[in-house]
Amino acid sequence: MNNAVPSLELVERVLAADIGGIARMITRAESGLEECRPAMAELYRHTGKAHVVGITGVPGSGKSTLMGKLTAHIRKSGRKVAVVAIDPSSPYSGGAILGDRIRMSELSGDMGIFIRSMATRGSLGGLARATLDAVDVLDAAGFDLVLIETVGVGQDEVDIVQAAHTTVVVSAPGLGDDIQAIKAGVLEIADIHVVSKCDRPDANKTIVDLKAMMTLGLTLSGASGWVVPVIGTSALKMEGVEELVDTIDRHREALESSGELIERQKRIAERRMLKTAEEILRDEFKKHRDGKVSVLIGQMMAHEKNPYAAALDLLAEVRLEGHRQ
Amino acid sequence: MNNAVPSLELVERVLAADIGGIARMITRAESGLEECRPAMAELYRHTGKAHVVGITGVPGSGKSTLMGKLTAHIRKSGRKVAVVAIDPSSPYSGGAILGDRIRMSELSGDMGIFIRSMATRGSLGGLARATLDAVDVLDAAGFDLVLIETVGVGQDEVDIVQAAHTTVVVSAPGLGDDIQAIKAGVLEIADIHVVSKCDRPDANKTIVDLKAMMTLGLTLSGASGWVVPVIGTSALKMEGVEELVDTIDRHREALESSGELIERQKRIAERRMLKTAEEILRDEFKKHRDGKVSVLIGQMMAHEKNPYAAALDLLAEVRLEGHRQ
Repeated sequence: MNNAVPSLELVERVLAADIGGIARMITRAESGLEECRPAMAELYRHTGKAHVVGITGVPGSGKSTLMGKLTAHIRKSGRKVAVVAIDPSSPYSGGAILGDRIRMSELSGDMGIFIRSMATRGSLGGLARATLDAVDVLDAAGFDLVLIETVGVGQDEVDIVQAAHTTVVVSAPGLGDDIQAIKAGVLEIADIHVVSKCDRPDANKTIVDLKAMMTLGLTLSGASGWVVPVIGTSALKMEGVEELVDTIDRHREALESSGELIERQKRIAERRMLKTAEEILRDEFKKHRDGKVSVLIGQMMAHEKNPYAAALDLLAEVRLEGHRQ
Repeated sequence: MNNAVPSLELVERVLAADIGGIARMITRAESGLEECRPAMAELYRHTGKAHVVGITGVPGSGKSTLMGKLTAHIRKSGRKVAVVAIDPSSPYSGGAILGDRIRMSELSGDMGIFIRSMATRGSLGGLARATLDAVDVLDAAGFDLVLIETVGVGQDEVDIVQAAHTTVVVSAPGLGDDIQAIKAGVLEIADIHVVSKCDRPDANKTIVDLKAMMTLGLTLSGASGWVVPVIGTSALKMEGVEELVDTIDRHREALESSGELIERQKRIAERRMLKTAEEILRDEFKKHRDGKVSVLIGQMMAHEKNPYAAALDLLAEVRLEGHRQ
């Protein structure tokens, strides 16, 4: 891990959309070191322009193939697009497609595509924090769309998906995904449904199932007036990708015109603030495990202090100064 | 909900093992109101004697039937036993068996059994906090064993199970529970495995599967020298319950003689302190949503302040005085 303090020079490189600078800044932010905070604070001032799209689907849903087509199609329209992949089963993470794509884009000198696979373990302070920091870096670097690819299970993943402006849930025929997605709690947060592999004969059943579920009111999207569409795609026949891009754009417009975008941004900001505060608290706890924390534990084990009183003492002891920039 | 401040009189009633007083104290603690805190702090001084056993298994595993037999058997040995059930599918929660049992024990004047079903939603500050408060009340009231019954899925449940001294995982033949339990992350935390319904012919396969998994090192228990046993039980043939009680007692002894009990108590105390601090933080966040929090949100949305800086401000603003007793 590179411990050097990210300089203002690195911030400048990110703002100038320099691919190497962006990659290095994300790596440093991923490490969660306090030294990165001034740079991240500076970059945050330049965020808020990108449209952030969460794309979620279980392994085997055809999500990764779709991501590739989607990215290429958005780029073709002249817009800059970045992908943050946190699916360990994704070929992006595996290295093959990812490596090829990055090399391709570097060789061609195309600064308009950036693909990043996040380490799913080892990030200090959690995957959600690291991922959203990466999104901030890419937003500040001027990418028009930032796509977050997740498998859509687990608390971290739900936190991440809830930080997107538009959420796309990918299901595939024959996987029983509808059930899996309900269990994972992602079906109801979809703004757009995609049924992949629509060249398969059983795809229609999945589409019908999803539409039936929507009729039951299980998939009402928050954006007033927005009717959650179900889009069939086929990588084989190259169908549906253009429709998906158009629909993402339409959703953005609906969010803006209904005023829902502001509401979503507000919820995202609230959630990030609270999650970050909890993370700082956990960091402090670890930092003082041998000091103040162990004194409090001793008092609890002697039954002099109950968990509530000990928690209050912990909060009072948090050395906020250490985090100040 | 009864908002009256729990008086010292109620604490006295709990310490005198008065069933009505215990029930009322748990209800008040469940509500999470700050007014309960002095009483809970006082009760905590009297905790630490009970052996806390987490019993977890998916619905259909035969766990609830086993709970009934287990409770009766422990009571027969002359010890006082309490059950805190947080499985919404449990007949305890359903009311039928629960109601009968409580009425039975009240009518017979037996103060040595107490069964409580926790509300799985609506508890302020989370189910885990409310459940562990209830365990504290029962511990202070002098119950020798406190059994926590859970379905063993979800973060709340894992938090609860990790607060037990001994964890029993119940599997049933033919349910595919082994897989389910692995997914839920509970198999590896078992100190004791129970395979229920051992009168069934396919029970042996489940036992063999579990033992094979242990050979793979997936179910090593933390207590040094403790070899995780697999116990077959049959409610039909009334088999295995006595062995289970003996094994729970043996595990307690192993924890004590190896020094592992202190280590577990320490981990439980640490975890409870941190979780409670996070809960206080979330409470403060909700409380100030229209005030300071909304100012910070405004600054974040104007991109003047990043989530990290806003989180630090939130932590600094926490009105700890409001929580002081």
